Amino acid sequence: MDGRAAGHRLSELAARFGLEWRGEDVLLRGACTLQAADPAPGSLAFLANPAYRRHLAGTRAAAVLLHPDEAAASPVPVLLSTNPYASYARVAALFDAVPARPPGIHPSAVVDPGASIDPAAHVGPLVVVGARSRVHAGAVLGPGCIVGEDCEVGEGSELVARVTLVRRVRLGRRVLVHPGAVLGADGFGIAPGPEGWTKVPQLGGVVVGDDCEIGANTTIDRGAIEDTVLEEDVRLDNQIQIGHNVRIGAHTAMAGCAAVAGSTRIGRWCLIGGGAGIVGHVEIADRVSIAAMSLVTASLPEPGEYASGTPLQGKREWRRNAVRFGQLDRIVRALKTQEPTPHD
Amino acid sequence: MDGRAAGHRLSELAARFGLEWRGEDVLLRGACTLQAADPAPGSLAFLANPAYRRHLAGTRAAAVLLHPDEAAASPVPVLLSTNPYASYARVAALFDAVPARPPGIHPSAVVDPGASIDPAAHVGPLVVVGARSRVHAGAVLGPGCIVGEDCEVGEGSELVARVTLVRRVRLGRRVLVHPGAVLGADGFGIAPGPEGWTKVPQLGGVVVGDDCEIGANTTIDRGAIEDTVLEEDVRLDNQIQIGHNVRIGAHTAMAGCAAVAGSTRIGRWCLIGGGAGIVGHVEIADRVSIAAMSLVTASLPEPGEYASGTPLQGKREWRRNAVRFGQLDRIVRALKTQEPTPHD
Amino acid sequence: MDGRAAGHRLSELAARFGLEWRGEDVLLRGACTLQAADPAPGSLAFLANPAYRRHLAGTRAAAVLLHPDEAAASPVPVLLSTNPYASYARVAALFDAVPARPPGIHPSAVVDPGASIDPAAHVGPLVVVGARSRVHAGAVLGPGCIVGEDCEVGEGSELVARVTLVRRVRLGRRVLVHPGAVLGADGFGIAPGPEGWTKVPQLGGVVVGDDCEIGANTTIDRGAIEDTVLEEDVRLDNQIQIGHNVRIGAHTAMAGCAAVAGSTRIGRWCLIGGGAGIVGHVEIADRVSIAAMSLVTASLPEPGEYASGTPLQGKREWRRNAVRFGQLDRIVRALKTQEPTPHD
Repeated sequence: MDGRAAGHRLSELAARFGLEWRGEDVLLRGACTLQAADPAPGSLAFLANPAYRRHLAGTRAAAVLLHPDEAAASPVPVLLSTNPYASYARVAALFDAVPARPPGIHPSAVVDPGASIDPAAHVGPLVVVGARSRVHAGAVLGPGCIVGEDCEVGEGSELVARVTLVRRVRLGRRVLVHPGAVLGADGFGIAPGPEGWTKVPQLGGVVVGDDCEIGANTTIDRGAIEDTVLEEDVRLDNQIQIGHNVRIGAHTAMAGCAAVAGSTRIGRWCLIGGGAGIVGHVEIADRVSIAAMSLVTASLPEPGEYASGTPLQGKREWRRNAVRFGQLDRIVRALKTQEPTPHD
Repeated sequence: MDGRAAGHRLSELAARFGLEWRGEDVLLRGACTLQAADPAPGSLAFLANPAYRRHLAGTRAAAVLLHPDEAAASPVPVLLSTNPYASYARVAALFDAVPARPPGIHPSAVVDPGASIDPAAHVGPLVVVGARSRVHAGAVLGPGCIVGEDCEVGEGSELVARVTLVRRVRLGRRVLVHPGAVLGADGFGIAPGPEGWTKVPQLGGVVVGDDCEIGANTTIDRGAIEDTVLEEDVRLDNQIQIGHNVRIGAHTAMAGCAAVAGSTRIGRWCLIGGGAGIVGHVEIADRVSIAAMSLVTASLPEPGEYASGTPLQGKREWRRNAVRFGQLDRIVRALKTQEPTPHD
Repeated sequence: MDGRAAGHRLSELAARFGLEWRGEDVLLRGACTLQAADPAPGSLAFLANPAYRRHLAGTRAAAVLLHPDEAAASPVPVLLSTNPYASYARVAALFDAVPARPPGIHPSAVVDPGASIDPAAHVGPLVVVGARSRVHAGAVLGPGCIVGEDCEVGEGSELVARVTLVRRVRLGRRVLVHPGAVLGADGFGIAPGPEGWTKVPQLGGVVVGDDCEIGANTTIDRGAIEDTVLEEDVRLDNQIQIGHNVRIGAHTAMAGCAAVAGSTRIGRWCLIGGGAGIVGHVEIADRVSIAAMSLVTASLPEPGEYASGTPLQGKREWRRNAVRFGQLDRIVRALKTQEPTPHD
């Protein structure tokens, strides 16, 4: 809690995570980058991305976590893993000075008498919990969170701060939701009529599976009739928008500002790039990868990598090409007229 | 309030909404999809989108709301409407277990003595209301809402939860604002100088007409001098950004993550697709439709459908085409040089 | 505080800001646009954008702030500046009825005993301040703000309302943060494994330089190991997403909904258009300008203007061209085959 955790010997880390180690049994108290000019004493670096290999020889880290194949090149003690990034993730958790969130309900929280809070849950300052909602053991509702009616926060789940679960939102276990996220708001259902729009009631909820993570200011609407569903281990970055009745398969990860319109189904182990959009009512297969800022306008029944858009260019050059894009069909048709052999 | 409303006979719904009905006079207590495998007893489905017609014959719903032309094919009792989606919207409102928001001010709310709260308004827990703001009869300020100075919340309007009206925001009647929305923040006005930016004060406000809906985490900045304006019945989905001094015409609907830059005027009955962008200082006519993720860079004086962008493809194929886009003007010029007859 | 500030004579404004003036020494009490049909008495307009020059002759403003070259055409008294927009920004600040935020801690705020609040700081209603955080003189924490552990809010900085600083966020002096912004949430670090994702702890913080402005619902993640950094006078509009370990150079301005992925470095005095995206791990030079909704996928070592995308067209015409884009490489290859002289 002083911003710097207690130290761990290299040998202790190796034993704890089932890894090998070599060199001096140094005491490690934090992490640094491989290229850090002046790391704090006792800092562990890692090497996972080959682009950073050039920094290994000159590293000032106290030890490096890397693949056994790279170990010989390290000037400092090493911790060995065939998946250095995942191993780093586990080791670094020991260095993270996470604030304590002890069980109990802060006196400033407003909890509906019909809500059920496990004694082993933490309900922080200025939290609101509505009727019929249940908060399970080990769950954390950080400062300023609002949990509406008929919600459930599973064991060990954490709403970091100022998260809103509007209504009928059920989180599984170990779900982590970052500040500003809004789950369970009305889906965008409006029926047109001659005099204006009629709002379509949104009768469903949101179901979030175990081990999901939901980024800051991300929004997930509740379903129109059935539920909006995230299966387990779905990872959403910040400012993502998930429309009503979407279903996202297990282990799919989406980068910041991506958006999925209503009733679309996304498979398992997909990777959706930052700012990418997926229209409503389509189906995306498992293991589909979508490039940043691409727009998906139809179902993708096959795994693979997909993209749309045009390359960045200097603005004058880009403008000339963009003008030609606007004439493209006309140009191609003119070519066909001129030439005896159609090439298209 | 038990998550399932009291039931309504088919005949009763027909009478209430001026519709015809046929078949057994079943008791309806909720909604289901036409294709639901195991709907709760007493569930009403609807058929509006022809793509779902194939589910009608096998439906397990207790009754179906559909167009008279489809009625003969229904295996269950029917409720008939020439606009089934709009009729469903009205009927389903009866099935929506909306939490009660009784009049009164929660003891944890912080209300400035210079604010005016109608006795028939609901001010929920941990709400803040600033000086000179007025909250009218039937208005609801849900948990955690912040209403700054000089704001007005009209009759029957609802800020669901954790909405912020920063300053000089006036909402009409029956406006619905979802969690995380921020109305009336400073517009992005900065004047360049040799040593850095000077902030331009934002002296205007935000005016929102009757029956507007504003989605979760949407932002609407207040005007620089005059007001930012939404006319009546404007429908904004989640995470939309509206710059200062924008004016949006009545009945226009915008899908999630769309954005409009400052001083742009949008007509009535427009449909703006998800993630679409509209630059500043342009005018969009009535009944313009913009495709998802398109960018509007100039005024559109004519109604119609508009789009920009390129189609999604497999990444290798896309890359080859994208490279050619970057050469497009050069390629076309070379063609012209080679051929005697200009085709462009 | 009555929504209209006390008045200032034209001569007084001239003296205060080192400007010249001509005409009657009118009393000014607010601002209006040059073309306002019925401005309040005593309203000052300005002329900076030549597109508005046509409104000068008919203006109903009480006075106009403009470039000396335009002065002769003004029908009303003038205030002269060679940078009229920047001068207007300074003058208009006098007309802005900013609510008072007196020093002191509101009784509803929840302040950790280990936090340090300067007596000259304002801590508003329903604010939370965590352990070891420091709030300096003249700082304002508006209603509903949450400042987590180990944060710092510098002299004269303002969190307008409902801002969240999650952890290890250090704001310099005179930083302005708008509602809904989330600084210091976990960066999106996840390591893949055969059974799912492992979360990578985010051990760094966020450092924001003096005079930065951060828009409503913008998110800035804290660093994985080192800090995410905004240098001084960076101006971010609403709904911007800044990934972990990004560094943004002084005086750079980004328009709404732009996004920067992790570890990217952006230079000084850059202008990033609305909705533009920049991928991770690239470097952008000083004085780079990116057009709205463009995607930057590689480093840009040279200053200049850059763009990607295609022009907006009527949807039928656009679709024909978009189809051709999808065939572009094939078409160009066919042309080369047909013609003896390669033109590419």
